[in-house]
Amino acid sequence: MLQIALDAMGADNGVEPVVCGLLQALQNRNFKAYLVGDTALLKTSLDSKNLSSDILQRIELLHTDDYVRMEEKASDANKRTTTSIYHAIGLVKNDEAVACVSAGHSGATMSLATLQIGRIKGVSRPAICTCMPTIENRCSIILDAGANTDCKPEYLVDFALMGFHYAKHVLHYETPSVGLLSNGEEDSKGNELTKQTFQLLREYNFFKGNVEGSDIFNGSVDVIVCDGFMGNLVLKASEGVASSISTILKAEIKKSFMSSLGYLFAKSAFKALKTKIDYAEYGGAPLLGIKKPVIISHGKSNARAMECAIYQAIEACDSKICDKIAEAFQSMQR
Amino acid sequence: MLQIALDAMGADNGVEPVVCGLLQALQNRNFKAYLVGDTALLKTSLDSKNLSSDILQRIELLHTDDYVRMEEKASDANKRTTTSIYHAIGLVKNDEAVACVSAGHSGATMSLATLQIGRIKGVSRPAICTCMPTIENRCSIILDAGANTDCKPEYLVDFALMGFHYAKHVLHYETPSVGLLSNGEEDSKGNELTKQTFQLLREYNFFKGNVEGSDIFNGSVDVIVCDGFMGNLVLKASEGVASSISTILKAEIKKSFMSSLGYLFAKSAFKALKTKIDYAEYGGAPLLGIKKPVIISHGKSNARAMECAIYQAIEACDSKICDKIAEAFQSMQR
Repeated sequence: MLQIALDAMGADNGVEPVVCGLLQALQNRNFKAYLVGDTALLKTSLDSKNLSSDILQRIELLHTDDYVRMEEKASDANKRTTTSIYHAIGLVKNDEAVACVSAGHSGATMSLATLQIGRIKGVSRPAICTCMPTIENRCSIILDAGANTDCKPEYLVDFALMGFHYAKHVLHYETPSVGLLSNGEEDSKGNELTKQTFQLLREYNFFKGNVEGSDIFNGSVDVIVCDGFMGNLVLKASEGVASSISTILKAEIKKSFMSSLGYLFAKSAFKALKTKIDYAEYGGAPLLGIKKPVIISHGKSNARAMECAIYQAIEACDSKICDKIAEAFQSMQR
Repeated sequence: MLQIALDAMGADNGVEPVVCGLLQALQNRNFKAYLVGDTALLKTSLDSKNLSSDILQRIELLHTDDYVRMEEKASDANKRTTTSIYHAIGLVKNDEAVACVSAGHSGATMSLATLQIGRIKGVSRPAICTCMPTIENRCSIILDAGANTDCKPEYLVDFALMGFHYAKHVLHYETPSVGLLSNGEEDSKGNELTKQTFQLLREYNFFKGNVEGSDIFNGSVDVIVCDGFMGNLVLKASEGVASSISTILKAEIKKSFMSSLGYLFAKSAFKALKTKIDYAEYGGAPLLGIKKPVIISHGKSNARAMECAIYQAIEACDSKICDKIAEAFQSMQR
């Protein structure tokens, strides 16, 4: 049975979404979970649910007093060997678990994963890989979504390769296409970083050239490559637009009785839209380039997002994505 | 009477949106327009409308055979003195017009404006300043929205100063606040460029620190500063999200009769939303840092967008924004 290490601490809404997401996932999939954190808190949460012995048998609590607070610097936090994320990552390092999921401090998770589990040989930097909804019936992935704020062209080439293999082996896209996020589609467009990257990516068949911010959502390419600073900006701007449109539309609908009635009639359509663009459905984001699967979840994750993040960890194991990436980098003998 | 130079050529949808937008603006405001471009095309368009002599008297056609095509390189196009944008900018340079509006090749417009009209003393780089809708009842502005792909920290400080004065004198915000676009709100967040910029901006009272992509739309600050590459990415990603949400929602609504009915009832709310987030309502984007007002419009501008861009040119003149920026930079004696 797969064994997954779950860092239960440090998320914005406490242990409850983590526990509820885990219980849901345990009902649907066959795996064992190490739940790492304050066992008093975790026991209280588990005791309040009516759990079958089958579920309970597949949860093992591991106690840590300490955890990394969101406001801490990753560089300080990583020195402590007493934190929940340190122990969760340690379980993967020592082969007691095959993958780790955390909704805690993402900077700490990234650097501990790199320091303890280690980078795949040949990968310059690990990257956060985020799935985005598109108007087509398949998602696109964007990487790096925030791990590396300042990048060199070679890093972006590695992101392209890792994204290609993720799309191929985890999302099962037959011939994934890769685009470079830029300020225009023409080959000549870009800043210094992307212009140099463009020249390096030209030699790969999967490379479809420059793409623009709007291409993230229209499904024109499967994998979008950028540095972690840009990735963070466009993802947060996108969340902001979606949430603002929802706020404005709600306010306008409330202004008239007819509109409110119309909303009730059209509710199923709004619900379908919400599911399609809800970040929770896309779960966490795998940190690609690490030797073993590590899934980073949004600090604000609800139970559904945690549940989906656990499925991502399972899919990462089933697809052997880390091995596939390692093989790809090895075969290039760089 | 104000005299505005309008480059009629090179937009994606030909001269028609330019002519129609101009006619609408001439009905609402008192100004004279130099319409620069292929007079045969322009006359045909004007003749097809039923125009009063008052309107006709306030349009002067200026013929040019040549114009800059969208696919041309700005550096090549700028060498030709026969293009419509060269002549339109020339009218402003020679004080025959007080402002210029173009929906043609934006790169050519920017560099010709800089070369012919010139930068305001002390301004390191001109920046494109774009208004964005927010959930509050006032817009935020973002600059640079695309003029400079690679920036130094000092450029971003200049963008902050120009944005502050635009918000104050054109948008009439009493005490505009300025934020630096970054990958997190904490002071320590950023890439090399924004971290250095942060230190320089600290000395200004209007500076509110780092803001995230989502802050563009929630109205938390009035002015958002970034380099032109990032600005372009987040604006296009935002357009992409809005358009994808609309596509998905339309498809979902069509799936059931009840939803379609609901949409009809709620149509006024959708219309209000559309007006609020429609780029056309925000017209063009002023190129700040040039000695005279130059307004850059989207190549895809419809008539309403061109009309609003002309209003922006008039407001730029009325508010004397170029002089205000010049005074601000002079008083700093940099």
